[in-house]
Amino acid sequence: MDLEDLKIGIIGLGYVGLPLAVEFSKKFLTVGFDINSSRIIDLKKNIDATLEVTSLDLKNAIDLSFTNDTKILKECNFYIITVPTPINQANQPDLDPLVSASNLVGEILKPGDIVVYESTVYPGATEEVCIPILEKMSKLICFNMSNLDDLGNGFYVGYSPERVNPGDKSHTVANIIKITSGSTPSAAQFIDRVYREIISAGTHLANSIRIAEAAKVIENTQRDVNIALINEFAMLFDLLDIDTEEVLKAAGTKWNFLPFSPGLVGGHCIGVDPYYLTHKAQLIGYHPEIILAGRRINDGMGSYVVQRLIKEMVCKEIPMVNAKVLIMGLTFKENCPDIRNTKVIDIIDELQKYNIEVDVYDPWVSNDDALKEYNINLIKKLDEDNYDGIILAVSHKQFLEMGVSKIKKLGHKKSIVFDVKCLFPSDTFDIRL
Amino acid sequence: MDLEDLKIGIIGLGYVGLPLAVEFSKKFLTVGFDINSSRIIDLKKNIDATLEVTSLDLKNAIDLSFTNDTKILKECNFYIITVPTPINQANQPDLDPLVSASNLVGEILKPGDIVVYESTVYPGATEEVCIPILEKMSKLICFNMSNLDDLGNGFYVGYSPERVNPGDKSHTVANIIKITSGSTPSAAQFIDRVYREIISAGTHLANSIRIAEAAKVIENTQRDVNIALINEFAMLFDLLDIDTEEVLKAAGTKWNFLPFSPGLVGGHCIGVDPYYLTHKAQLIGYHPEIILAGRRINDGMGSYVVQRLIKEMVCKEIPMVNAKVLIMGLTFKENCPDIRNTKVIDIIDELQKYNIEVDVYDPWVSNDDALKEYNINLIKKLDEDNYDGIILAVSHKQFLEMGVSKIKKLGHKKSIVFDVKCLFPSDTFDIRL
Repeated sequence: MDLEDLKIGIIGLGYVGLPLAVEFSKKFLTVGFDINSSRIIDLKKNIDATLEVTSLDLKNAIDLSFTNDTKILKECNFYIITVPTPINQANQPDLDPLVSASNLVGEILKPGDIVVYESTVYPGATEEVCIPILEKMSKLICFNMSNLDDLGNGFYVGYSPERVNPGDKSHTVANIIKITSGSTPSAAQFIDRVYREIISAGTHLANSIRIAEAAKVIENTQRDVNIALINEFAMLFDLLDIDTEEVLKAAGTKWNFLPFSPGLVGGHCIGVDPYYLTHKAQLIGYHPEIILAGRRINDGMGSYVVQRLIKEMVCKEIPMVNAKVLIMGLTFKENCPDIRNTKVIDIIDELQKYNIEVDVYDPWVSNDDALKEYNINLIKKLDEDNYDGIILAVSHKQFLEMGVSKIKKLGHKKSIVFDVKCLFPSDTFDIRL
Repeated sequence: MDLEDLKIGIIGLGYVGLPLAVEFSKKFLTVGFDINSSRIIDLKKNIDATLEVTSLDLKNAIDLSFTNDTKILKECNFYIITVPTPINQANQPDLDPLVSASNLVGEILKPGDIVVYESTVYPGATEEVCIPILEKMSKLICFNMSNLDDLGNGFYVGYSPERVNPGDKSHTVANIIKITSGSTPSAAQFIDRVYREIISAGTHLANSIRIAEAAKVIENTQRDVNIALINEFAMLFDLLDIDTEEVLKAAGTKWNFLPFSPGLVGGHCIGVDPYYLTHKAQLIGYHPEIILAGRRINDGMGSYVVQRLIKEMVCKEIPMVNAKVLIMGLTFKENCPDIRNTKVIDIIDELQKYNIEVDVYDPWVSNDDALKEYNINLIKKLDEDNYDGIILAVSHKQFLEMGVSKIKKLGHKKSIVFDVKCLFPSDTFDIRL
């Protein structure tokens, strides 16, 4: 295939697919496809609800069209699949979106086409799960290392993991080095060349699809484990009556100390990707010790926060029956409206097990989203002298601006404030991580 | 106390105490004390067997005297204790050297004296273990936050963790930021001021001794856990037939990926310090998940290396009865003679459980040391066509210089080479981490 013949189809227009489509459309004719028709309607009006791409960028993307019609998608010859790869309730990979996207692309695949996956998966998933579906649906073969000389009709597959950091305006698609790979050496080279057209930071061509898959999944696993370690320090130091932030500040003066902070690990990446790796590991009989220890710690932090709060409330002789707690912040990250997989939910659930009345306040979140996703009715207004406990769960700038005394006034005289994110200095409130 | 009245006594002249004594002697009269009389004899001849300080530096240190006589030490008023804090066979802290040094200093302590500990300990050890000994032996009280106004005869204590990286000539005592702390605010300020006289990188005055202790012990724990995670990746990827180094190289192209490598974790710090923290944690009823998971993985790597080698040998139809294996490298770190707590011993022990004949070769290690420490007779000469298996355990530059074909020739035609440290490219030898 020549670059000038390229027509790119991107399947899945979320926070990964849409910015990628915009970039590719600067060089190639690009079709953006999503099964969510209201998303397509929005995008046609130059509106991106994820706030990753501006209306102006969408307006300027003249070679980018949006559709939910596979007939239009069929005109492409270079498909990029950017659908979500979440986990289910049992913390097992939920490959349904990936399977659906593979089915869809498999049906329209033509000889010589290339399909590149960007979704985070475990090593082997592309070859073991996706390619068989593409082959079955298309009735074509996938060219790979063992059928290199096959003269039959076939297609090529690649894997190029997304590294998008939502909300991060300095690390954008074009200026993050991108890993590429392909099912044959020539396909890998070609895929790499296509990405190099839009990635100004350059690419790293991995030796195999599995290496590229493994590289992606260990990146977030490493982050998860490092945060878990700091959470373990925080829980231990709390028992020792040592302020964790002070310890981290002191340790941080060593040249090679890594500056991680304790906290809840939510969102669609760091708390999710490790389970893809551990799923595969357990399938082949390797029982991950440290990765799962990290997951156990991080998944338990919501419950820990509640236990710690209640211990403090009881010790301060605050009656627990009919107690009322305010949670400030619902999102998985500060200063953004994203509530996907937020671990603040664990705090709410745990509090409700004690029959505690919980109010949730988050100036970034729409009540519709909170209701739809978690059946939570956000409070819109903060009343003074109203709570027995306050949990500062997310470090939104609004809470910092609100200041210490305003936050304290929301509680009764004897109430406890838990500053989970160490938003304020160590001696300000009663408890912190 | 005024700075000009200061006379510093340093107890323990190992790789921490000696460079520190040399630095302090540039500003203050300094006495170096060690119970090892042959070490004192050497130092008086300007010879440092640890290679941390040159003869010229020792010769130039005119205000530094060496002794093993406590009467001379008694003339000091600012004591710094830099004795080792190892672990015992059961991976529990061995505080014997610290207790002995505290007994010794306690006996000579005078009102107004200051004692600073630099040895790595768990949070609380200085106050719970060392100070009571000093008080008992000296019959003086230690001034602290709760007896600040006491007018009786007393002394002060501080904690300022060493951060020496043996063999590292760019991160030396004077240019690593140093954490300081003291039992009272004024003692802390004074101790900080004393260290600032010699630490050009500056100091970080922690709010309490416990914070300083905690900061030190988490630094190496973080390193240990990060290496353990990479070791877990390596074992998993080996089962998946994925080259770990390739994966790490690809992941390393992300801006925030942390570049750790798999390997044996030996030496006197990284594999030891976490056990100090976990000991204290378990004492107070907190059972560390991730720290101990890391320790389990890293302590198991020697045995893993052997199992992996033997699997490969058996699959390649190499008879295991009377098999002979060469181990290249015995030290805990490359290009140094340090064999303290080297995990290569675990490889040797595990091989011997199979009745395999083991030769150990290390151009950096004296046979006397290897015999004394581990009852190992090093081979001096490498014979060709002599081994069924070769383990490249340490990445000494001599092995790299030796090159692939020379190393291969040491083995029989069918022998297996395990390149533990990935010293050579991935397709050179049979197995690597």
